[in-house]
Amino acid sequence: MRTVLIANRGEIALRVARTCRRLGIRTVAVYSTADRDSAVVRFADEAVHIGPAPAKGSYLNIPAIIEAARRTGADAIHPGYGFLSENPDFAEVCEDEGIVFVGPPAEVMHRLGDKAVARSMMVEAGLPLLPGSTSAVEHEGAARELAASIGYPVIIKAVAGGGGRGMRIVREPEELAAAYRETRANAQAVFGDGRVYVERYLESARHVEIQVLADRHGTAVHLGARDCSVQRRHQKLVEESPAPALDPKIVADMGDAAVRAALAAGYVGAGTFEFLVDPEGRFSFMEVNCRLQVEHPVTEMVTGLDLVAEQLRVAAGEPLGYGQDDVVTRGWAIECRINAEDPARGFTPTPGELAEFVPPGGPFVRVDTHAHSGYRVPAAYDSLLAKVVVWAPDREAAIGRMRTALGETVVRGPGMASTAGFLGEVLDHPRFRAATHDTRLVGEMLGGDAA
Amino acid sequence: MRTVLIANRGEIALRVARTCRRLGIRTVAVYSTADRDSAVVRFADEAVHIGPAPAKGSYLNIPAIIEAARRTGADAIHPGYGFLSENPDFAEVCEDEGIVFVGPPAEVMHRLGDKAVARSMMVEAGLPLLPGSTSAVEHEGAARELAASIGYPVIIKAVAGGGGRGMRIVREPEELAAAYRETRANAQAVFGDGRVYVERYLESARHVEIQVLADRHGTAVHLGARDCSVQRRHQKLVEESPAPALDPKIVADMGDAAVRAALAAGYVGAGTFEFLVDPEGRFSFMEVNCRLQVEHPVTEMVTGLDLVAEQLRVAAGEPLGYGQDDVVTRGWAIECRINAEDPARGFTPTPGELAEFVPPGGPFVRVDTHAHSGYRVPAAYDSLLAKVVVWAPDREAAIGRMRTALGETVVRGPGMASTAGFLGEVLDHPRFRAATHDTRLVGEMLGGDAA
Repeated sequence: MRTVLIANRGEIALRVARTCRRLGIRTVAVYSTADRDSAVVRFADEAVHIGPAPAKGSYLNIPAIIEAARRTGADAIHPGYGFLSENPDFAEVCEDEGIVFVGPPAEVMHRLGDKAVARSMMVEAGLPLLPGSTSAVEHEGAARELAASIGYPVIIKAVAGGGGRGMRIVREPEELAAAYRETRANAQAVFGDGRVYVERYLESARHVEIQVLADRHGTAVHLGARDCSVQRRHQKLVEESPAPALDPKIVADMGDAAVRAALAAGYVGAGTFEFLVDPEGRFSFMEVNCRLQVEHPVTEMVTGLDLVAEQLRVAAGEPLGYGQDDVVTRGWAIECRINAEDPARGFTPTPGELAEFVPPGGPFVRVDTHAHSGYRVPAAYDSLLAKVVVWAPDREAAIGRMRTALGETVVRGPGMASTAGFLGEVLDHPRFRAATHDTRLVGEMLGGDAA
Repeated sequence: MRTVLIANRGEIALRVARTCRRLGIRTVAVYSTADRDSAVVRFADEAVHIGPAPAKGSYLNIPAIIEAARRTGADAIHPGYGFLSENPDFAEVCEDEGIVFVGPPAEVMHRLGDKAVARSMMVEAGLPLLPGSTSAVEHEGAARELAASIGYPVIIKAVAGGGGRGMRIVREPEELAAAYRETRANAQAVFGDGRVYVERYLESARHVEIQVLADRHGTAVHLGARDCSVQRRHQKLVEESPAPALDPKIVADMGDAAVRAALAAGYVGAGTFEFLVDPEGRFSFMEVNCRLQVEHPVTEMVTGLDLVAEQLRVAAGEPLGYGQDDVVTRGWAIECRINAEDPARGFTPTPGELAEFVPPGGPFVRVDTHAHSGYRVPAAYDSLLAKVVVWAPDREAAIGRMRTALGETVVRGPGMASTAGFLGEVLDHPRFRAATHDTRLVGEMLGGDAA
């Protein structure tokens, strides 16, 4: 693998480019007009303009990206997260063009991307699932029948969804019809696929996910668990590894189950198996994310691995070279997502001029960011400015280190706001401190609908 | 310990302040006129101006610092490195004022600071030493006699010296008289103490040092070895931990010897025992540094400990709470010192406007710095801009990561230069890669006198 094109933007594009450079791999950045002055454009060995700002014309523009790869002689494409990262069509085009897609095979992505198909596959692989449909629910009547048999509350999810988008909780039978219609319409609009499925909704649950790595030679390992229960409207805000207040025996069971399922699915590369864990420690499979996660750094900090390097090695056909027993975690890592959003106004994004940006520093503090003083935060993309990641020997020390880091972080500009202060409040919350929180924590802090 | 005054400047002042904040300790910065806009002044909870730029009027101005501590209610002073950090008079004044000096007791510093006394103490504690004088050499004749009995080459060192300053190698008897006179005069001028001692000079040796931590309750541990053989004129440029190409058995012996000596000397706090290691792996004690070292981060990265936090805990009278067996190192860490100096012009400092400063980033890259774009590098102080520290599972990966990090580092401004490019060449040097280098490497790269 000599040249890698990075089909993404922002912090993850820069993060991938850094690892490529370290491995002696030439990097090609692609960029939209809005990102022409971005850090990765300066950093990469070559940069290609692929279109205007709405992602459709650039970061989702498959022909333009493939053309850039051809023109620059890229022999692999790293898709980052979001955009085309879980698009099996894109992976297939890459395969057809003889370009290595850094991710699982198109066919595997296709099956796992259909959440209903993924559910059946996981049942077969022996993963526990919440009661629900094993295929798309084709009409309202079927949804109603299923919900009645499962018992309320239920959650309606887009088959093509993922990453917390396109889902709706239904607490009463009377709400079902409207929710079903709206979820379908929404899924059609957002994912171009209106199919939905139904499963039981757990009121109190933690979001715990298992990082899996699999090579092309039948070896797969897991890299422990991440707890991502601090969420606002299903968007993760704070992530940590290991998962707190969770019996290591349960984590080991989840890990074994995820590895088994990954092997059964023919998975290759880095993938994440997301679970819900109820207060009794029972876990249920939710979905597989066929890509690097935003929160992958916490796993890196405790395992010592560079997950992008592992992805590239595996994509190049190398064997992992180690087994489950070689994966040893150490200490505790926490990540906070610093978004350019105003918590006081319902987390409205605040694009514009970032006049002053001072990231935190010091021992065991890592900042993944593309931002800098003078950066213009584009309105066209998500509002992630920086991921602040800390490591410490234990959770309490990690929380303390993160509090200091958040306190140091300066985000200033006309109309600019950030989530740093709010995340500090989350970390100070007695239930977060005691690790007795669940996915409702942020909602409760904000009060009702604001969640 | 509620309030700590930081009697230093630059990156170390900020680094100490960060740990204090994390531990919930209020911080007081002191600053010279030249440093009034510095990062730690903005960061600290309180900042006190203590005098003009030459260190004598400010960072070496004991009455001004004590007055600042009194006025701000500081109950402890962290001296950082350099300046007053190894000044037993300062430690004594602190003790008299009822202020905790974060370092060993004044009396211990006094004895270890006298390099001749330290030599005798270490002989008693059973540490191997190079042949040489066990007390100051009072006249030229005695020096000549001693040199003849030791055998040339010898090195003449200031009794009050340390940190690589105030020493001179003598290869031929004819050079001795001049060298003796000059070393004495220089020592008198720099340290206010003209006494010198003589020991054998090893042509080929590595500089390996042991980090020690000792509490007030008779417990001491070592945190492994650092190799600091990449030096220019006895100033360290690159440091790493563990020490490469050194039998772990030898490191364990050095560690045990250092701990034994620390306990015998009544040492308290963080200290460094410096050794020379010859090509056969025989080690000889050089000196003790009674303070935090510039290169302490490499030890932090492999042990997972925050050395400043450990210093503060021990200074507050807490027991270490762990023993030698609990100290487990992981992976490899390297530090490069990015100085504002021009390697093409004999490493002349290049003070002035740092128009653009882009530190490196990414996984397992740490930057300890007080610099930022727009910072004015003062001419009054040393030229250290930033310490770039990387961690990786092994040395080869750490070198690769450091190469990427150095390549990312941008230091630009009118007349401004940096050591980043030169350090990249050091890391690429086949002997550094193979870990067969010794303290002559940089000299040989630069050719003769330039070293």
